[in-house]
Order: sequence, then structure tokens, then C-alpha cells
Amino acid sequence: MTIPANAAEALSQLLGPRFSQSQADRDLHGQSETFHTAPPPDAVVWPLTTAEVSQVMAICQQHLIPVIGWGTGTSLEGHALAIHGGIVIDLMKMDRVLDIRSEDLQVSVQPGVTREALNTELRATGLFFPVDPGANASLGGMAATRASGTTAVRYGTMRDNVLALEVVLADGRIIRTGTRAAKSSAGYDLTGLFVGSEGTLGIITELTLRLHGQPEEVASAVCAFPNLEAAVECVTATIQSGIPMARIEFVDADAARAFNQASGSQMREQPHLMVEFNGSPVSVREDAEKFGELATDFGGQGFDWATTPEERAALWRMRHGAYRACLALRPGATAVVTDVCVPMSHLAAQVAAAAADIRAEGLVGPMVGHVGDGNFHSQLLVMPGDADELAAAKRVAGRMAERALSVGGTITGEHGVGIGKRPLMRAQHGDAVDVMAAIKAALDPQGIMNPGKVIPD
Amino acid sequence: MTIPANAAEALSQLLGPRFSQSQADRDLHGQSETFHTAPPPDAVVWPLTTAEVSQVMAICQQHLIPVIGWGTGTSLEGHALAIHGGIVIDLMKMDRVLDIRSEDLQVSVQPGVTREALNTELRATGLFFPVDPGANASLGGMAATRASGTTAVRYGTMRDNVLALEVVLADGRIIRTGTRAAKSSAGYDLTGLFVGSEGTLGIITELTLRLHGQPEEVASAVCAFPNLEAAVECVTATIQSGIPMARIEFVDADAARAFNQASGSQMREQPHLMVEFNGSPVSVREDAEKFGELATDFGGQGFDWATTPEERAALWRMRHGAYRACLALRPGATAVVTDVCVPMSHLAAQVAAAAADIRAEGLVGPMVGHVGDGNFHSQLLVMPGDADELAAAKRVAGRMAERALSVGGTITGEHGVGIGKRPLMRAQHGDAVDVMAAIKAALDPQGIMNPGKVIPD
Repeated sequence: MTIPANAAEALSQLLGPRFSQSQADRDLHGQSETFHTAPPPDAVVWPLTTAEVSQVMAICQQHLIPVIGWGTGTSLEGHALAIHGGIVIDLMKMDRVLDIRSEDLQVSVQPGVTREALNTELRATGLFFPVDPGANASLGGMAATRASGTTAVRYGTMRDNVLALEVVLADGRIIRTGTRAAKSSAGYDLTGLFVGSEGTLGIITELTLRLHGQPEEVASAVCAFPNLEAAVECVTATIQSGIPMARIEFVDADAARAFNQASGSQMREQPHLMVEFNGSPVSVREDAEKFGELATDFGGQGFDWATTPEERAALWRMRHGAYRACLALRPGATAVVTDVCVPMSHLAAQVAAAAADIRAEGLVGPMVGHVGDGNFHSQLLVMPGDADELAAAKRVAGRMAERALSVGGTITGEHGVGIGKRPLMRAQHGDAVDVMAAIKAALDPQGIMNPGKVIPD
Repeated sequence: MTIPANAAEALSQLLGPRFSQSQADRDLHGQSETFHTAPPPDAVVWPLTTAEVSQVMAICQQHLIPVIGWGTGTSLEGHALAIHGGIVIDLMKMDRVLDIRSEDLQVSVQPGVTREALNTELRATGLFFPVDPGANASLGGMAATRASGTTAVRYGTMRDNVLALEVVLADGRIIRTGTRAAKSSAGYDLTGLFVGSEGTLGIITELTLRLHGQPEEVASAVCAFPNLEAAVECVTATIQSGIPMARIEFVDADAARAFNQASGSQMREQPHLMVEFNGSPVSVREDAEKFGELATDFGGQGFDWATTPEERAALWRMRHGAYRACLALRPGATAVVTDVCVPMSHLAAQVAAAAADIRAEGLVGPMVGHVGDGNFHSQLLVMPGDADELAAAKRVAGRMAERALSVGGTITGEHGVGIGKRPLMRAQHGDAVDVMAAIKAALDPQGIMNPGKVIPD
């Protein structure tokens, strides 16, 4: 579609140069980090206030223009691609930390604040925001996709750490969900409904987040395992034993090779676990000892402790750089990224089956995972334009999803549905998809909020 | 209303004697634990299977008969009262623990399993289900009201501990929400939507719950404080310090007196905190010492440790019996129970203001609270038929709610809305109430699911 002239006029009057139909701006907001592609949106707006978002929505509703929210553009499932055209609302100019309430362990932020910016701002308070998807994503985007990452095993996902939202609905109405209380039983959990709704029900314009005390003591380590099964079984045993891991990440031999190549690390080209312990000096020592015993039982060796803050930062920077490091294993490649999450008792078998399938299809597909949650990723490297390779990668991804569903798992643990996982939604949810569609129709009767995402046809 | 003859015929054919219109059965399902009253329902059914619930719903939908779910009948807000007549679905015959998956720290249960029955069943596994609202409520009812209780400060509420549901919708369709994975980003959080929906969107017929390892070491204690402010400020300091309390409960002087009278305990008639620590022997000792120092700073004295499992059980039995113990302070009385929850930094002032208000109105209103969450209750004792006293109690409750809302808190931390809190919903949620109503209309277009609850007119 193209933007009707009177809509463009209204947006231009409202936003001045913060409404753009230039090719450059549109192209910048038509990118994706993965193999998903789509034509760029028809226009981009950069609101500064909730009132502006509301007015943009009212104009778009009037002209039935699709609206797509945009944060840092780091989605892996094509969430922010304008597949039906329309206007991208880039929220990155709404980037203020509004109110740090240290005594209540809470902060209110605008959606364009990134997680790193927030934690920089919080440094002096002794508090931090734990959810950590790797990318330095915007908090609005993280809420919209129900992101999690390396620390979810201890601190939960965005579902657990968003207390309240301000949301602009499809018709421009502004609502507030949730409260500043730690819990509430006052009616439907709208906060939980908007978290993970991927911009299909409304645009998040403010978030109230739970904060956590910076742990007194932190210890991180890397440990090699003789094979993939041993590493993953060690994770299952660790979680079942109740050791309160702050992080427990799986890295396969290919990913270790990618890390070495990208970061100059000297990991053995073997499966590894990267772990972190948080707490008091006494509890961290106790937890680390217990984990060490379990790791030894599973053949873990060569514990490499990151003792200084700098070493720890380097360790997790390396882990956070996994996506780009793995892409570099095959220069020029793009990726099909899988994201299944399964019950712990099935994790080792599922990871092993995925590895075997990747090998059988002759693909390069390093694997990493937030395995303390049962969540693991393979990054299937394909050359753009190689249809056979893309088809093989999609077959592997499809079988991983099928296997996950066969044991009661999910097709996506943290990346969200976007366009990539949409065809699998009915396989996972059955008729519950119709309930999702009914909610979508109730809140967005014209279907202008990020159309073509989440809900299958 | 009365049940149309052909509907009664269909229900009778389906359920035989498990469909009843007898006055005795109706009266049993028209009770409330508090001052809320309503005429009994027109009929009661006791389904044994999800399929039966589905068929009951289909019949009720066809004849536009209101349907109200029923568990143990321990709601404090009149949730299960048939205020528009109709049929109560008593789910207590669906009481099987279906599948304990110890390795995944999960269990699947039918909705009529009570929390105590579940924990009895789990005893041999080393696992337990932590959510503990005091009453031995059904797990279906606890999910429907988003219950929490004494352990939420450590283990979260039903929102955090329900992983998946089976739900029968208004038209009889059966859906499954959620998965067996620890987390999921696959579309709208329907599990979270049905948890806390109080039977207004569907009937929960199966729950998958998170389990937790029984802690290696448990220590409980009671400690007296010179006044209410000191006790509550000690709680705020404790939470802010990050000590991972398993329980931290406030009891005022009146409630202590009620405990002494009901349980033969010998508490001083002063405000108290009742606390519990869970963990390894080392961490419990460390946590208890840190808390002891804080308590001493706030004038806490007379630490009374419950060291044996029997003593601990007696301590928490006493706490769980608070509602009846407090009622017994005034024989013949019924109660208006308040349930506000506020941000920690406002807790002491809000508790003190409530106490002053109760005194000023000349009411007896012992206070207890899950203060680690910022949640506290006053139990305003009123004599049935004394309209002035009831009006005074409602004034006090109304002002507590207003004060909670003025600091961003909630009108109900854990009891739910029912009919009691319904008039306050718009004050708390503003236009977000219309979004709740739109969802309700989308999922229950005929309005037969527990009508007159949660959503205000």
C-alpha cells in the first residue's frame, strides 16, 4: 500500500520531520537479522510521547494503515517486517528512564530504553534489571516478544519482570495495566496479555519493571565436557538438585570454535557449560562446590573461573556475541535460528536428536542454549539464494519443533512467533489459537496492529 | 431464574444423580464465608470428566443458563454466589492427581484436588507445591482467583506456578493453554489470562503446576515488636536487603490475642512477625542471622524458634487458622475482609493508617498480612443485621482501597474481585476495564460464565 495523501499530511503536521517516507528511512526499517525478508514499510514515524503514539494510531485506524512497532530491530523471527506495508513506529526516541524507585525495587521506563542503558543508569543504586537476551534490545521490544535469555533460569523472563504497562490501543486509547504492588488479583492479567503479544494488540509506551539487588558475590566459570549428552545431562541434574544457578548455558563444539575465532578465546572444541553463581560469599561457594561435584560426575573438566569483573564481562560478552560469531563461521551466510524449549527430562535426547539431524542434512548449525530452562538454539547457516540449503534448514527446524511438541514443549522459548513460527501455531496450540484470534479481533477489529504476525490465517 | 424443563432433562440424562435441584444441595452451594449473601443457585452438577463439563456448558449455552464454578467454597469475595441464578458446577469430584513428573518438577491435576491433598501425594517425591492461601482450597479455585498466601514472597503466586491449563469455554469447546516447557514465547499468554479470571471466561478442568524441591533445612520463628510501625518497617528493610525469606507474616496485637484464645499459644499481645527460612543448613543459618540483626535493630525481641517439624506445623496451623480465630474474638460476628497490596515503601504508613481508621470507627478489626509482598488484611468484625456497623466497616475498607490506589497499589492482592471488589475496578484500572470487558465479550458473548463478577457494569 501507499500512505493516503491526507494521512501523510496529518502525520506530517503532527510530527514534522519525525514522519518520513524517504527510501533510506524505509530501508533502515525493513531489515531483519535473519533470512526473513520483506519490502520496506511505506513510512516511518518517531514519536516522542505517548500522546503522539496515540495520535498516530488514531490516524492509522482512520485510514486502515498497518502499524508495526520497532525497537532495535534485533528480532530473529521477522516481527517488525512490514509484510502488509504500512507505518513503522520507531520507539527509540522514547528512551527515558522515568522513575527509579529503589526502595520498591522498581523502575518505570519508556520503551526505547535498552537493557544496557537501563543497567548503566542503575549502577549506583545497587540494583539491576536481570533479563538478558544477548542483544542490547529495547525494553519495549523485549516485553513485546516476552524475551528472556541467560538469566531466566534464576530471575525469570519478561513475563515475570514486567509489573505494569502503559499501552496505546489500535484506536488510540491509552490504558494502564498492572500496578506497583508485588502482586494483584484484581481482574484479568492484561500486563501478561500484552507481554508477548508482539505489537499485535497495542503499542507499549511505558513499562514498570521489577529490579533485583546486585548480588554481593558473583562467580562464573566455563567447563568442558566429553560430549554433548554429558553436558546436557549435567544441566538436568543441576536443575533437579535445586542449586540456584544464576546462569547455566550450553555451547556445542562448533560454537566453541566460533567463539575462539571471534574472541580469541582458547576453548577446547568440545561441548561446554558456561555457569554463573550469585549470592553471598558463603552461598556462592556452597553452590559452586555442589555444581563442581555434579560436573565431575558427568566428566566435566578444565574448570576455568572468571574471577574478576573484567573476566566475567569478557566471558558473557563472548556468549552474547554468539550469533555473530557463529555467522562468521561461514562468511556471507545468513541463519535459520531455532528456539525450541522442552521439559528438562527430555532435554538431552532432544539436543542429541537435533545435532544428529543437522549432521544428516549436511548443514553447519552450531548450537547454544539456555539449557537451565530447557531452551536451546541451533543456528543453521545457509547461503542467501541457495534454495536447497534453505529448504534443508527449514526441514531440520521443522523436525525440531515437531519433536519439542511431541514431549509437551514449545516451538519458541524466547524469540517469539513473528512470521517465522506462525505456521506452527496451530500445531502447538490447537483450538486455543481461535481464542487468541478472538482476543485479537476484540482489541484490533480492523486488524491494523502488526498484521500477519503471531495468529495464523 | 429456574432451569428450563428440557435443560433439566438433558442434564439429568447426562449426569443422573450428579445433577440436583434439591433445596439442600442448592443451599450448600449458596454459602459464603463472609458477609456476602445471595439466593442459592437453581441447580448443582458434579461432573467427573472434562467431557461432562463440556456437555454441561453446551447445554447451558443453548439455554442461556448462568454457570458458576465451585471448589471448596472458601472465597472471601462472594465469587461463587449465584447472584443471577443458574447452575453451580461443583468440581470437587474431579479430584485426581493425574501425573507427577518429578524429573520436570511438574504435576498435572484435576481442579478438585486441594493443596493439602496434593502435598500429601507429593510427600515421597521430595517435592512440594508451595502456594498456600491458608484455607485448604482446591487448586482449580486457587488458579481461578490467582491465590497466593504466606509463601508468595519466595515462591510466587498461582500466576507464577501454573504452567498450563485445560479450559472448557462458554460454548463447550475444550482448549489447552501453555506447555510443559519452563517458558514459552509462542503467542498470547492464555494461561495467565485464565488464571485470575474467576470463572468468567471458562471452567478450568486440568492444571499443570510447577513443583519445588522440599528445602533441605527449614527454620521458623515468631518475634514480638514494640509497635506496629516497627514490625512493618522491619519487613521493608528485610525485603530491601534481599534476604530470601520463605515466609514473613505480620500479626497485630488483636490477632495475637485471637491466636492465644484459639490455639492456647502464649504470644504477647503485641505486633509480631512470623518468619520462615528455607535452604541449605548453611544458608538458613546465614539468612536467620541477618534477619535477627535487622529485627533487633527494629526492637524485635523474644525470638521463639520452632525447631521441630511438629512445632513448625503448629505455628503455621495457627496462622492458617487466623480467619476463624479472629471471628471468635466476637462470637456470632461475620467479617468484611480487606486485601490491599501496596509497594513496600508505603507499607508501614498504610498499615498504620488502616489501624488508626479502624480505631476511629470504633470497630474490632484484627490485622494480619503477607507483608513481604506488601499485602495485608484487616478482618472487620460486624454483627449480622447491624447495618451501621456494616456501613462503618465498608467505609474503612473503602478508604483502605483508596489509600492503596493513591500509591499505585491494588484493591486486592490475592482474594480476587468477586462481587466485593467489583465496584472498585474502574477506580483501579480506568479504561483498561473496557479491555477486560471486550475480552469477556469475545470469549463469552452470551455472558453466561459467572455473570456479575469481576467486570463492573
